[in-house]
Amino acid sequence: MAEVLFKKVAFIGIGLIGSSMARRMAQDGMAEEFVGCARSEGTRTKAVELGLVSRAVEDPAEAVAHADLVVIATPIGSYGTIAESITLALKPGAIVTDVGSVKQSVVKAVAPHMPKDVHFVPGHPIAGTENSGPEAGFPELFDGRWTILTPSETTNDEAVDEIATLWRQMGAMVDIMTPEHHDRVLAITSHLPHLIAYTIVGTATDLEDDLRQEVMKYSASGFRDFTRIAASDPVMWRDIFLNNREATLEILQRFSEDLTAMQRAIRRSEGDALEEAFARTRAIRRGIIDAKQAE
Amino acid sequence: MAEVLFKKVAFIGIGLIGSSMARRMAQDGMAEEFVGCARSEGTRTKAVELGLVSRAVEDPAEAVAHADLVVIATPIGSYGTIAESITLALKPGAIVTDVGSVKQSVVKAVAPHMPKDVHFVPGHPIAGTENSGPEAGFPELFDGRWTILTPSETTNDEAVDEIATLWRQMGAMVDIMTPEHHDRVLAITSHLPHLIAYTIVGTATDLEDDLRQEVMKYSASGFRDFTRIAASDPVMWRDIFLNNREATLEILQRFSEDLTAMQRAIRRSEGDALEEAFARTRAIRRGIIDAKQAE
Repeated sequence: MAEVLFKKVAFIGIGLIGSSMARRMAQDGMAEEFVGCARSEGTRTKAVELGLVSRAVEDPAEAVAHADLVVIATPIGSYGTIAESITLALKPGAIVTDVGSVKQSVVKAVAPHMPKDVHFVPGHPIAGTENSGPEAGFPELFDGRWTILTPSETTNDEAVDEIATLWRQMGAMVDIMTPEHHDRVLAITSHLPHLIAYTIVGTATDLEDDLRQEVMKYSASGFRDFTRIAASDPVMWRDIFLNNREATLEILQRFSEDLTAMQRAIRRSEGDALEEAFARTRAIRRGIIDAKQAE
Repeated sequence: MAEVLFKKVAFIGIGLIGSSMARRMAQDGMAEEFVGCARSEGTRTKAVELGLVSRAVEDPAEAVAHADLVVIATPIGSYGTIAESITLALKPGAIVTDVGSVKQSVVKAVAPHMPKDVHFVPGHPIAGTENSGPEAGFPELFDGRWTILTPSETTNDEAVDEIATLWRQMGAMVDIMTPEHHDRVLAITSHLPHLIAYTIVGTATDLEDDLRQEVMKYSASGFRDFTRIAASDPVMWRDIFLNNREATLEILQRFSEDLTAMQRAIRRSEGDALEEAFARTRAIRRGIIDAKQAE
């Protein structure tokens, strides 16, 4: 058993990430009571049936009442509305955190609504699968993965420590950085890859019917891996691109230039240039394996 | 045990694919004698040490002497030279096949060098991993995967049947199509995905040093999957792009247009367009799972 960190935890949103946190915290006894909040009745019923929360409500304000920890785990487009609606219901001294994939816009949407006696510690676990919903979560999701926290300079240090401890107890490693830096790093490691995967699967979707059938049949040679990424939640990803626009467009521009250079090398049959380009990417794969983020 | 199909098999090239075939054929008793041919002495020594072949030689002509089946499994850029060098050494009635990822250029490079009494059956197993070399192979590599054969109209039917039987005994399913159609399908399912993966990992490689370190550390959220694909053999992939130039450029053009449309939607904050684009790609993933090419 891990340390009991919180008496009552409220999850606003109980999908893949929220339900994985609830599972791990319950399994290791990190909190005593779990309450959930979801807009859809199906999700609320499912969350209670699965035993993830003792109670699931529609109103965020009702969910956060008396909670020591509030975890916002919905698509980030809804953060502003949620933050506004819970302001008056938050318990003095409570900690509010989130798991959103963009941090600058999250801080902008949430921080202004936080009462002075509530501590907001923005967070982002670098973990996930292509599946969504409360049934998709599992307690080991964060094991060996990084969680990034982006507190401001004025955030209460103890609150940051408590959230860091929570993540470590859930199996994650914790890093702290600015929201700006987070958004730039994630644009490369996550947002651009997803955009590209969605695009290539979209390109295949537009093919004539016969050819599209064959693309599925013979997908094992590369394409398949892109379809896994492109099966991620559309609303979540819409919100990510709307909220990390500048950083995504910046890295996308670099990628497009590099792709054009590849295209030119193929058109001109520049074998040496292609071989050199393909050989130098192996170092990054080795680096990832050394960093224990792949096998 | 499967049926004994060939007395002597010669593998020209004994990397991931060649060694996986040798392992499976030996394990299930599909042939009696295996000879290997590799340019590098290290590969030859390794192939014999691993027990993949009883003998490994440098000269393709020496390897194919008395062989009933010759499997060309080198990067496709070397096919012309190999075909030319084995012409006079091939046994009358022998079958020559290959495993190359492009078929039109392979037929063009190999067919003119084949004696009248030798049967050339071009093939391509849609299976692989990012690893290369004789130690990377394993006998189950082809289980449940497709192998495409692209014989010409004049190819001996019995020879095509024998190669189809060989692949089925190695666990694969077999399809027959024209080289042109093969190259078009593979440009989408394999060549474009690899080009994109190489490009994005290259874009990350060009980042400032600090940022590149962080990209590796936080790679679990999408980027990692691209690095796996981009760790594939650079020479093999150089040859693929040089040999399937037109089909790759054609699908790359479509992809670039689609990516530009995505870029525009992000720049203009067109949330509905993004959500719709992200939602419609799920059908292809489901199709692949239904086709049992992913879980």
